[in-house]
Amino acid sequence: MAVSLENNTPHQVVIIGGGFGGLYAAKALAKASVNVTLIDKRNFHLFQPLLYQVATGTLSPSDISAPLRSVFSKSKNTKVLLGEVNDIDPKTQQVILGDEVVPYDTLIVATGANHSYFGKDNWEKVAPGLKTVEDAIEMRRRIFGAFEAAEKETDPEKRRAWLSFVIVGGGPTGVELAGAIAELAYKTLKEDFRSIDTSETKILLLQGGPRILPHMAPELSASAAVSLQTLGVELHTHTRVTNIEGDIVTFKQDNEFTEIASKTILWAAGVQGSPMGKVLAETTGVERDYSGRVIVEPDLSIEGYDNIFVIGDLANFSHQDAKPLPGVAPVAKQQGEYVGKLIQRRLQGKTLPQFHYNDVGSLAMIGQNLAVVDLSLIKLTGFLAWAFWLLVHIYFLIEFDTKLLVVFQWAWNYITRNRRSRLITGREAFVEAKSINNSSTYQTPEKKQPVKL
Amino acid sequence: MAVSLENNTPHQVVIIGGGFGGLYAAKALAKASVNVTLIDKRNFHLFQPLLYQVATGTLSPSDISAPLRSVFSKSKNTKVLLGEVNDIDPKTQQVILGDEVVPYDTLIVATGANHSYFGKDNWEKVAPGLKTVEDAIEMRRRIFGAFEAAEKETDPEKRRAWLSFVIVGGGPTGVELAGAIAELAYKTLKEDFRSIDTSETKILLLQGGPRILPHMAPELSASAAVSLQTLGVELHTHTRVTNIEGDIVTFKQDNEFTEIASKTILWAAGVQGSPMGKVLAETTGVERDYSGRVIVEPDLSIEGYDNIFVIGDLANFSHQDAKPLPGVAPVAKQQGEYVGKLIQRRLQGKTLPQFHYNDVGSLAMIGQNLAVVDLSLIKLTGFLAWAFWLLVHIYFLIEFDTKLLVVFQWAWNYITRNRRSRLITGREAFVEAKSINNSSTYQTPEKKQPVKL
Repeated sequence: MAVSLENNTPHQVVIIGGGFGGLYAAKALAKASVNVTLIDKRNFHLFQPLLYQVATGTLSPSDISAPLRSVFSKSKNTKVLLGEVNDIDPKTQQVILGDEVVPYDTLIVATGANHSYFGKDNWEKVAPGLKTVEDAIEMRRRIFGAFEAAEKETDPEKRRAWLSFVIVGGGPTGVELAGAIAELAYKTLKEDFRSIDTSETKILLLQGGPRILPHMAPELSASAAVSLQTLGVELHTHTRVTNIEGDIVTFKQDNEFTEIASKTILWAAGVQGSPMGKVLAETTGVERDYSGRVIVEPDLSIEGYDNIFVIGDLANFSHQDAKPLPGVAPVAKQQGEYVGKLIQRRLQGKTLPQFHYNDVGSLAMIGQNLAVVDLSLIKLTGFLAWAFWLLVHIYFLIEFDTKLLVVFQWAWNYITRNRRSRLITGREAFVEAKSINNSSTYQTPEKKQPVKL
Repeated sequence: MAVSLENNTPHQVVIIGGGFGGLYAAKALAKASVNVTLIDKRNFHLFQPLLYQVATGTLSPSDISAPLRSVFSKSKNTKVLLGEVNDIDPKTQQVILGDEVVPYDTLIVATGANHSYFGKDNWEKVAPGLKTVEDAIEMRRRIFGAFEAAEKETDPEKRRAWLSFVIVGGGPTGVELAGAIAELAYKTLKEDFRSIDTSETKILLLQGGPRILPHMAPELSASAAVSLQTLGVELHTHTRVTNIEGDIVTFKQDNEFTEIASKTILWAAGVQGSPMGKVLAETTGVERDYSGRVIVEPDLSIEGYDNIFVIGDLANFSHQDAKPLPGVAPVAKQQGEYVGKLIQRRLQGKTLPQFHYNDVGSLAMIGQNLAVVDLSLIKLTGFLAWAFWLLVHIYFLIEFDTKLLVVFQWAWNYITRNRRSRLITGREAFVEAKSINNSSTYQTPEKKQPVKL
């Protein structure tokens, strides 16, 4: 590694991506005698695990975002740079952003993952996924817009399509979305409409494998399934979407094909490594797996380049279990902390044992008093799991924001099921409700004309 | 008036617009034996007086919005309809929304006002105004984006343009924006950047007339001017913008022309009645004033149609003072309540004396411990005014939302100058910071490409 011990300029660490991985790497280096440049396309860090609550109207984007500059305001060795990296040159040790060039001694790539439509990229428009604030606002617009459109629709068949929600993917995001939409339809919005009965809403959760939440213990999957069904969600396992055309979703369960008309299809199925993985592969020759993740060494560096690290959702770390570590926040966070520490050790001429993920368990929220918690030794369901989920997230949010009052408000809103944040906003918000979910008929908002007198 | 006393179908009241006027009219009718249809393009009511705090990063849109359906959830006689009214037919007593027709016995038009660029409509793109949530998010993107772009800019002249903010219009919105941006630049963001010194930011407030806040007592205008100047705002009265081209603003003060390069120009100058005023003029022949407002009768109905009322910013009510009532929330609110009451009286065969605006005074926030309050008999400045402003807004927000905790959080954030809500979001958020404020170079966000393996 190009450790700049000989000269006086401090060691330059460049981190690409301000998600959990990048953020915790930068935090680990905040007091080290290195210079850190943290590059992100966005000016904020996003607490992605709660993004589904923005999509379903419980939280505002800023409730789960922290401006990167204010996080590192006091860390004078850390520079936040807003921009998009186009290329990396591992020979000259430079990162390229447009016509700007940032040199590095050590590079940490933490650009995460994007949705994957398994080659059916045309599904993206009809079945949006949930990765960014904009995704969440768009989902929110579609979900609340669907009820609005149903209220105006007089044709019973079309109304049914507006009141049908199909969620593809039974991982945590899919389960949490399905549970939240069920509570919306069957509880929160019940009194709000005059023409429709929101309790007629149909919510389908489609899962390819034999059970939902496959990363949890089988008994917890079963408990979550029962909870979802009690809430009113129709659950289909062993089910794959084979076609989406207009508002018709075709899915295959066992060997039977079913069609359902739905105006709101939400994608929570596949992810793939972000494009930076491809850039790395092209410039360093590093290998990637079937979903575009970069294969990393036991210390999270990449083969042939001990000063380039890949962490978080973009990394395929397979040195602990038979299968790669999952793409979840705690993995990214621990990897960021590990690399931050490793860089400091190396500068002292020391080293660290290989990265080891300390699995603290996993949890998923289904609805009021309904959650599942898998802590290996302890498994919780129902109210206890729900209370535990709440406590854990309060803890994370405090650590994340240190604004106790915000967290208190969040918990309060969450407990009381207050859905203030159900604004339909964005450029398409002015468009007639009828075409809300129909991207092809999108019209630009009416240009304000001056009054002619 | 077509009072439907003879038959059994209840009297149909249609309200267009869910701002302060429409909202309070509907609230006044919530327990009356009439049917109310409240039509709005948006699914929420917006507390517009605090919109500038969304634009400057203190509040989230949902902090100052209330979903219309949840406001009227319990009022079973009230139906909320999401849609845009295209036309009115006063003869058949119908309101037309696309291919939908809504009949009325009494119509209340409360569609408010839009920006006016005094015929220079091409300025709108470079100098956006502040009326909607989208406007506020766009302003926020431009304000925070300007600091980001300045941080990356190496050319000192261009950097100065990024750090120059021009606010056109010295009414409450202009004053509040100028004060908030000054606090951002000189206090909140001071420690956040590494290349720029945000205290070098230049903030110009341009006012056409001889003093800012012309609706207040002269001594309060003077006090506000001193406060703004203490904060660091450069104030120009007797000043008119004569040209905006690219990022060059030309303004004329007395008889001298000055040019300034600014990447962030914010419009808080003129308003005009919304397009619904034109529709009313064409269909009923009612007169409008120079700024497109509809001239109303002493009971807020329009000439020749005692079952059509116009209230709020769209109405020109000149039966109380020599000049029309100002376009502020309390006027709209009281007019809405008046019309709601009048309709009920008429149905009982009674009437009401003409509308009378009870002016409770006006106030404007400048910055921490700096505000001006004009209550006719009592005039406050400095800390006392600031505390009073806070109390009044806490009171309004409680009435508005009844969620004490939210209000408490808001007040806390406000007092502690917490700017969590400074996310740069929206479709253009991914665009390179350099072109952030340059609409002409807008590129669509990079399409996510699947990884090819």
